[in-house]
Amino acid sequence: MSGLAGRFRELWDEIAPVGRDADSGGYLRYALTPPELRLREWFREQADLRGMPVSGDGNGNLFAWWGDPPTDGPNTDGPNTGGAVLTGSHFDSVPHGGAYDGPLGIVSAFLAVDELRAAGVTPVRPVVVAAFVEEEGARFGVPCLGSRLLTGEIDADRAAGLRDAAGVSFAEALGHRPAGADPALLGRFAAFVELHVEQGRALVDADAPVAVASAIWPHGRWRFELRGEGNHAGTTRMADRRDPMLTFAFTVLAANKEARLRGAHATVGRMSVEPNATNAIASTVTGWLDARAAEPDTLHGLVEAVQAKAAERARRDGTELTVTRESATPLVTFDGGLADRLAGLLAAPVLPTGAGHDAGVLAAHLPTAMLFVRNPTGVSHSPAEAATDDDCAAGVVALARVLEELACH
Amino acid sequence: MSGLAGRFRELWDEIAPVGRDADSGGYLRYALTPPELRLREWFREQADLRGMPVSGDGNGNLFAWWGDPPTDGPNTDGPNTGGAVLTGSHFDSVPHGGAYDGPLGIVSAFLAVDELRAAGVTPVRPVVVAAFVEEEGARFGVPCLGSRLLTGEIDADRAAGLRDAAGVSFAEALGHRPAGADPALLGRFAAFVELHVEQGRALVDADAPVAVASAIWPHGRWRFELRGEGNHAGTTRMADRRDPMLTFAFTVLAANKEARLRGAHATVGRMSVEPNATNAIASTVTGWLDARAAEPDTLHGLVEAVQAKAAERARRDGTELTVTRESATPLVTFDGGLADRLAGLLAAPVLPTGAGHDAGVLAAHLPTAMLFVRNPTGVSHSPAEAATDDDCAAGVVALARVLEELACH
Repeated sequence: MSGLAGRFRELWDEIAPVGRDADSGGYLRYALTPPELRLREWFREQADLRGMPVSGDGNGNLFAWWGDPPTDGPNTDGPNTGGAVLTGSHFDSVPHGGAYDGPLGIVSAFLAVDELRAAGVTPVRPVVVAAFVEEEGARFGVPCLGSRLLTGEIDADRAAGLRDAAGVSFAEALGHRPAGADPALLGRFAAFVELHVEQGRALVDADAPVAVASAIWPHGRWRFELRGEGNHAGTTRMADRRDPMLTFAFTVLAANKEARLRGAHATVGRMSVEPNATNAIASTVTGWLDARAAEPDTLHGLVEAVQAKAAERARRDGTELTVTRESATPLVTFDGGLADRLAGLLAAPVLPTGAGHDAGVLAAHLPTAMLFVRNPTGVSHSPAEAATDDDCAAGVVALARVLEELACH
Repeated sequence: MSGLAGRFRELWDEIAPVGRDADSGGYLRYALTPPELRLREWFREQADLRGMPVSGDGNGNLFAWWGDPPTDGPNTDGPNTGGAVLTGSHFDSVPHGGAYDGPLGIVSAFLAVDELRAAGVTPVRPVVVAAFVEEEGARFGVPCLGSRLLTGEIDADRAAGLRDAAGVSFAEALGHRPAGADPALLGRFAAFVELHVEQGRALVDADAPVAVASAIWPHGRWRFELRGEGNHAGTTRMADRRDPMLTFAFTVLAANKEARLRGAHATVGRMSVEPNATNAIASTVTGWLDARAAEPDTLHGLVEAVQAKAAERARRDGTELTVTRESATPLVTFDGGLADRLAGLLAAPVLPTGAGHDAGVLAAHLPTAMLFVRNPTGVSHSPAEAATDDDCAAGVVALARVLEELACH
């Protein structure tokens, strides 16, 4: 193990126990709950240790500054006029998520600062490490909530009123109404680079530890609500049934088939059943379709096809189908010049991804890039997510080179 | 409306609001929870009004006696040696169940006593109205728990330890360990007749208000647990997935098809998903199969076929299937002589049913019969369950004639 891999492991072990579920081995680090609040405190401790002042944006996002922290008003003079280089990621997890999704980008950012300092590098622009709040949307339902607030892509009042499963609002969890868009702060950043564990096997196949992102597939969530007739499971003749579970099951298989035909991704991983009793035919079944594709037209065609098949089956089953689009995120193409520049610098492959990220939100507002670190299992949003210390060290080295490239020229 | 239909409505309205959910219109009358406890109190009030002493059996079942109540020791002498005629049903409901399933049999029994008394009938054997506890199994998971305890078909210690969703044990809910089998009490009953709302449309088709039951189909519950690999919905290639939702969906459709082919009933109305997140492929999906058929061999063949198809699909999906039989109830054939005698007496059709009942449990221990009252919707275990006051009055008349037939000769 290289010295850097050892330093990575040492820092990593500080946060590894926080929010870890002993049974699943996965993490329960929902935004602004005690485990995530502990990690935010750790973020401030790490920034302090490095002499990096921490500022907030009133939306729950944290920024640790190596170089001039923001002052009131736009930054119009001085050596940092060109804007700071932003890096970092998020601490929050999906239910029983993996250790690396999010935190790896923050830990790697602090270590990259250490690497640059150890090498005597003096950036001419500030380097800023960020921790974005509620990236997964696992608590309040809207993914990338922190970056959407900062960029104004979600209204502050709407965000304030989002509630978790226990009825606590985002404003209550935050302690105040979120401040919303901050163009002055955003204007201080010249670029954003988010390092993230890979959420597939492309780097395993490519036999490389690090990649640069080209794009985020367009994706969205559609709620399929199926209403039938609740009835007795024992006494209702098959011909007399209006069973929404049948329509649901058919829709699940249709989504899988249509996605495979198109080289797209479709998943039904969430559902609810009423009344959910063994001896009762369901009255209502609701399933959520997560669909993604490389091209918007492919995604559109996929969802149309699944919807048409579900509607046809609903007619046969005597059930009623209502489809609601809960969210839709357009194709994000990262700054092509920046991606090519970093891929050349790192001699790394360039890959698209099907996952949303804060980088996908910020990409509409400033030049943005992503680095992926190899995940030997390819598994994500699960305790099986993994990365070796050596690959994480390679990620730190890559990120340090990128920050030097962007902050010293 | 006949006078009796009016008297039915009057008594019925006393209990109609108890445990009714304002949103669904269905009932939440789980065993030994406040709504069901209120109905048990109402049972004692009605018995008091009629001068019928109430005894318990230490298992939560209640018995109101018209004629000699039980004393200690076996009943060996006196005019009632031949044994009492037992009638009644249960108060508890499935989640958001209908009004009639259970309570109709108890209300009709009290009204039948009134009819017999008004007609000056003096039984030579006691007539006993029963309220059995936890017939649906909706709170503690074992249907017909009260009648199984009385007859010794479930061990008292096992029943004591059954827990509801909140962790409360049956013994805690009851206030004491259940007493278990009571052969002495059981020995006092010469016959049991349960009146129940029909849970299908056979009486609608037959254009008759009341039927006599011939048999209860053999039935059971099988838990299908499907384990795959939790993963990211956006980034995991379709070919790399081990998605148990696909196996579940295929199994649901296979169960429906196999049941139709055999003229049997198969339902998947209950399921759970882990982690149940929109952007995560499920790691585990569990579905419960409720299967019923007229003949044991048909039921066996149905479950075997569904299991084989699920296993084959699991191999294709890379998931692991575990099937556990949670309960199995053999064919119950009601006393043929008794059914024929009552059908002749009432000029009523004779029908089998797919639903379990306390009568199905007691049928192994004493001559038992069931009467069904027409349900115009045919719907059961749902707020849509229905019966007209006139049909309910016809049910009371039929039950009174049956009680007279059995208790006066």
